[in-house]
Amino acid sequence: MIVREKPTVADLFTALRGSVLPQIWRALLALVLLTVLLVLLDHWLKVLPHLEGTAVTVFGIGLSLFLGFRNNAAYDRWWEARKLWGGLLADLRAFAREVEVFVPDVALRHAMLRQSLGFLHAHRMSLRKMTADPAAPAETQAVLHDPLPACAAMDRLNAMLAEAYRAGTVDGYGARSLTARLGQISLQQAGCERIANSPLPFVYSLLIYRTTYLYCLLLPLVLAGPAGWMTPLIVGIVAYVFLGLAEVTEELSHPFATTANGLPLSAICRAAEISLAPHLGEVPPAPLKPVDYYLS
Amino acid sequence: MIVREKPTVADLFTALRGSVLPQIWRALLALVLLTVLLVLLDHWLKVLPHLEGTAVTVFGIGLSLFLGFRNNAAYDRWWEARKLWGGLLADLRAFAREVEVFVPDVALRHAMLRQSLGFLHAHRMSLRKMTADPAAPAETQAVLHDPLPACAAMDRLNAMLAEAYRAGTVDGYGARSLTARLGQISLQQAGCERIANSPLPFVYSLLIYRTTYLYCLLLPLVLAGPAGWMTPLIVGIVAYVFLGLAEVTEELSHPFATTANGLPLSAICRAAEISLAPHLGEVPPAPLKPVDYYLS
Amino acid sequence: MIVREKPTVADLFTALRGSVLPQIWRALLALVLLTVLLVLLDHWLKVLPHLEGTAVTVFGIGLSLFLGFRNNAAYDRWWEARKLWGGLLADLRAFAREVEVFVPDVALRHAMLRQSLGFLHAHRMSLRKMTADPAAPAETQAVLHDPLPACAAMDRLNAMLAEAYRAGTVDGYGARSLTARLGQISLQQAGCERIANSPLPFVYSLLIYRTTYLYCLLLPLVLAGPAGWMTPLIVGIVAYVFLGLAEVTEELSHPFATTANGLPLSAICRAAEISLAPHLGEVPPAPLKPVDYYLS
Amino acid sequence: MIVREKPTVADLFTALRGSVLPQIWRALLALVLLTVLLVLLDHWLKVLPHLEGTAVTVFGIGLSLFLGFRNNAAYDRWWEARKLWGGLLADLRAFAREVEVFVPDVALRHAMLRQSLGFLHAHRMSLRKMTADPAAPAETQAVLHDPLPACAAMDRLNAMLAEAYRAGTVDGYGARSLTARLGQISLQQAGCERIANSPLPFVYSLLIYRTTYLYCLLLPLVLAGPAGWMTPLIVGIVAYVFLGLAEVTEELSHPFATTANGLPLSAICRAAEISLAPHLGEVPPAPLKPVDYYLS
Amino acid sequence: MIVREKPTVADLFTALRGSVLPQIWRALLALVLLTVLLVLLDHWLKVLPHLEGTAVTVFGIGLSLFLGFRNNAAYDRWWEARKLWGGLLADLRAFAREVEVFVPDVALRHAMLRQSLGFLHAHRMSLRKMTADPAAPAETQAVLHDPLPACAAMDRLNAMLAEAYRAGTVDGYGARSLTARLGQISLQQAGCERIANSPLPFVYSLLIYRTTYLYCLLLPLVLAGPAGWMTPLIVGIVAYVFLGLAEVTEELSHPFATTANGLPLSAICRAAEISLAPHLGEVPPAPLKPVDYYLS
Repeated sequence: MIVREKPTVADLFTALRGSVLPQIWRALLALVLLTVLLVLLDHWLKVLPHLEGTAVTVFGIGLSLFLGFRNNAAYDRWWEARKLWGGLLADLRAFAREVEVFVPDVALRHAMLRQSLGFLHAHRMSLRKMTADPAAPAETQAVLHDPLPACAAMDRLNAMLAEAYRAGTVDGYGARSLTARLGQISLQQAGCERIANSPLPFVYSLLIYRTTYLYCLLLPLVLAGPAGWMTPLIVGIVAYVFLGLAEVTEELSHPFATTANGLPLSAICRAAEISLAPHLGEVPPAPLKPVDYYLS
Repeated sequence: MIVREKPTVADLFTALRGSVLPQIWRALLALVLLTVLLVLLDHWLKVLPHLEGTAVTVFGIGLSLFLGFRNNAAYDRWWEARKLWGGLLADLRAFAREVEVFVPDVALRHAMLRQSLGFLHAHRMSLRKMTADPAAPAETQAVLHDPLPACAAMDRLNAMLAEAYRAGTVDGYGARSLTARLGQISLQQAGCERIANSPLPFVYSLLIYRTTYLYCLLLPLVLAGPAGWMTPLIVGIVAYVFLGLAEVTEELSHPFATTANGLPLSAICRAAEISLAPHLGEVPPAPLKPVDYYLS
Repeated sequence: MIVREKPTVADLFTALRGSVLPQIWRALLALVLLTVLLVLLDHWLKVLPHLEGTAVTVFGIGLSLFLGFRNNAAYDRWWEARKLWGGLLADLRAFAREVEVFVPDVALRHAMLRQSLGFLHAHRMSLRKMTADPAAPAETQAVLHDPLPACAAMDRLNAMLAEAYRAGTVDGYGARSLTARLGQISLQQAGCERIANSPLPFVYSLLIYRTTYLYCLLLPLVLAGPAGWMTPLIVGIVAYVFLGLAEVTEELSHPFATTANGLPLSAICRAAEISLAPHLGEVPPAPLKPVDYYLS
Repeated sequence: MIVREKPTVADLFTALRGSVLPQIWRALLALVLLTVLLVLLDHWLKVLPHLEGTAVTVFGIGLSLFLGFRNNAAYDRWWEARKLWGGLLADLRAFAREVEVFVPDVALRHAMLRQSLGFLHAHRMSLRKMTADPAAPAETQAVLHDPLPACAAMDRLNAMLAEAYRAGTVDGYGARSLTARLGQISLQQAGCERIANSPLPFVYSLLIYRTTYLYCLLLPLVLAGPAGWMTPLIVGIVAYVFLGLAEVTEELSHPFATTANGLPLSAICRAAEISLAPHLGEVPPAPLKPVDYYLS
Repeated sequence: MIVREKPTVADLFTALRGSVLPQIWRALLALVLLTVLLVLLDHWLKVLPHLEGTAVTVFGIGLSLFLGFRNNAAYDRWWEARKLWGGLLADLRAFAREVEVFVPDVALRHAMLRQSLGFLHAHRMSLRKMTADPAAPAETQAVLHDPLPACAAMDRLNAMLAEAYRAGTVDGYGARSLTARLGQISLQQAGCERIANSPLPFVYSLLIYRTTYLYCLLLPLVLAGPAGWMTPLIVGIVAYVFLGLAEVTEELSHPFATTANGLPLSAICRAAEISLAPHLGEVPPAPLKPVDYYLS
């Protein structure tokens, strides 16, 4: 995720890091050059049919609405994903406090907390489709070859609790509290998997990209008459807005990727480690810092 | 559900799988041919009344808004259905962990887990109005002749729990935890049934389809003058956007159907089987893969 | 509620059942005749002032937005009401399962389940302002003369539980579980009453109907010039869309009425009876079927 | 709150009760007179600059969107406030049932229920900034001089429970259930205080009122040419819609006031008294009725 | 947060406190002066290309939609932050009541309550990035040098509970209730941190500011012809609306800052102190009052 404050005036002209231009400049250039060609044809050969503005106004309004819908849907996915990871962090902290109340055995407590961190890293790796990560703890490495590593890590944590409850070292109140907490964590995990496995319906991508390009290709026919040589500039600006938004929504709708708008899962995992360190009697590690404005 | 990534430039021109074109090409063609006819009539006989653009601009804006509303409502249904199935998956996993904590008897535990999978398959078959499915487990086959198969499967699971609680093999904490979990599963089940049994109000379909066709029929009267021979092209594009969106919303609002945008219920059932396999001491089956981009 | 599938082409021309035309044809006809009169006056006497399109474009866009808001608000009320009844159904099923676990006495169990069905019917009758219904069970008839019949039925159910808990036939875990379930049912009940007792603010109805009529009356002044004899047709179509939507929102915002878009409360009560029949050891009744597409 | 059904045709012309006209007629009249003056100046002196429509179309669309946002935000506040009071009613009913299950001592039970009603009235008076109300029960009068009367009433109720739990007259299950219920009530109370203490950001009011007046002042410059003597009429209608909506949102965003769109808090308090009467062994009072369509 | 009522007519002309003008007047002035220059150039040299209105209408509509989206997203962040702090206040009150029920030891009870207030102040200081605040209580000062002060304060509170549960001075029901409450508080805390650490995606800021400036620079080319000398005025008004809204959304999306639209965290902390005073046997402090309409 790009972490920058409100852009300054200088940023407006120069910022590329965090901008969407690098992804769309090829398409933009192609559209502008095509428009230049059309205007030249119109100027020299007078063969271009002219369209009145109202012919495409409603088309443009419809396109705005559909892009607006897709933008909302993509942003909602991104923000829901962020909420789920914020909830995972809160649940891990709550879990650490509850084991302190309900699990009197310190060694078991530490093992359970380490296992919960192992779960979080395994969950992060699953979402990012990573098969190896030297930064992950031993508890994560132990489950990486399982079909569902995050579930396997959670199952191991649950097995510790089940054994302790049957052995009587955790009482009924504790078993109720801790299973409820693990159930809550499972729910957040499944929410993340839902977002990762259910992309926005493909038909929208097709409909919106096809419509955006058609609109940008029709625009010169409308503008060539009244706007003349400014047509390529205006087509360029309109295409920048519409293609830019389409690209942003593409990125936001995949919130777990490591793109400029992906969520900083590694930083959240680190925040969980910092939060649990006092419960493990350890010195907390340093928080992750953005590198070139990018927080991984 | 169609599982494809962001369309490439080539896809934009050629993709039919996952596109909405196959459903609407007949209506599109009819509208375009009708427009050609109108333009010819206008050209030869000068009998066509001409309309100024503003006459239909507001009409078009209104239509965009109503289509936008329907699109939001349909997408919300689809996404809520996906959330409910994600929640069912999470609850089944949490149930598996809770029985491990609270049900000491291994045979009973396995029976309960198998019954919960039987419930999930029965629920899937109810939503898809299937009366037989060889892939469903024995626990599902046993309830298929019940008026409400999914409820019957859940009732059997509950009966196991009730018996165990009265026999004392499950304690009070366990009974509380497990009934709460089953209640949560029931809530998600009823949510799915609500979506399946309450279509979007029929009056919207009527209002929107009638208005879309009226708009596409009025458009030639507006465009025939200024746009001339390009009129059929523009009518075709506008009709593609509006009819396409109407068709997409029709599919999304039935999220449990086996259409291109239906949810992959079979794949989620399989995911549940994979998740529960370790608790049953079994080798997990392989996850379902998309066939020709389609995941059932 | 009207239960029909996606309209066919034939339906688009002919469907009246489930359409909004029967409610608005008088107003539509009056507006169209008035427009014909205005156009005739304009043609014969040239006394009609002409307005340019932009004068009313913004007005029309504003009107679309306000109608869109009202539509969203009305649909949200309708869908929230449907969710609440879906939740009631789920809670009744969960209640049936929980009494099976926590209430060992079969006679008491059956009495509690019958009472819960009595509550549901009393709740339905309250929402529909019915004072008598032969189809309601004896438990409902017994409370019909109470100021709040649904609350009275629930109080009786609660009294059974209180007595059993004090007598020791239900243990503490059961009392906690069952009171929590009844509290959940109460919450859904109060949600329905909130929707029934708090209509959409009256000021919106006034503002929107006044504005819609003003808009339809101004439109001929804009169109009489450019559109000529097609003016009545266009005014008719625009009025159909705007008045139709206003009428739909009026119906949807009263989701418990027995109109074409009212919720099928009787069918949901029947579904609850079918779900509870196995717990009562009874043969489940048949589900309600739509009559002439209408499910009550 | 104004309680009226769908307006009839007669209402459309005459209804003032529940209309927003009484609040805005002065501003409307001033704008219309100013427009008349401008048109006269234009007619006599030809000094008025003329603007083309498109110059203000986008401005008007932007204004519609911002008014639409404010309308949504205000309505959401109003509906959330209504939900919170519906929730309070449900929670009080559930509390009454839970004390019946868990508090065997009838005198204590009645004292707790009376105290809960005292809380509700104190809460209503706080939200409406009332310092005295003869209709409030004795339990409310006893806490009115406290800095936070509603909290004080709730603290007293909680003290009864704490004492009973320590004395052993309420068991652990009851203490858990009842504290959870009181916590739920506190949450709804804090939600109401949040809405009452956090108005919509002032900057929106300023931005929207300033923009609306600027728009209505620019409109004559656009219309004076094409619309001529109808300009004051159109400006009047547009101003009616925009100022009317601004005024409605102002009222709806203060849902606890005693305006035409304020929530009927007194009627809900009475509904709670009716619901709790059977638990107190009392005859329920009559529900509050609207006076001149107004329910307080 | 600025606390002012509905603006009067005088406020509309003069209010700067709470207005967005102070932040944007420089940009506004620059745009207006540039427009004056362009109009002069057009008047003297006739070199300015003229654009027809429709060329930028769709662009303006798109811009309105994107600004509208950003406005919604920013307001949602602000309101969610307010909800979370309202929830924290409710949870602290509920916690105070639950310790009264479940913690018989008065000294421990007071220590826990003081610690909970220490947590709230530490949380406020973290969100506002304050490293020192003489107004914070001793419990907050004790954790300020911790990497995560709010978590450290909460951990200390939890340690008191854990010790008391093991010592038997708090029973199992109390441990369940109080850990659940602390878990709830943790969730709200993590929600606030999520909002503070996840700004709106930077790419939106870039896209919207770039588009807004481009639009305001294109506008003179459209208006110079038809609007003539009024062009600077209209550009000024449009820029006021669009830049003003962009600035408002910038402030609202950082709800914990001490800007004019930041949330009054200090006042909420004080409200918590007032609410808890009776439980601590102390005289409640006075609530914070706005200074020059500003509540910190």
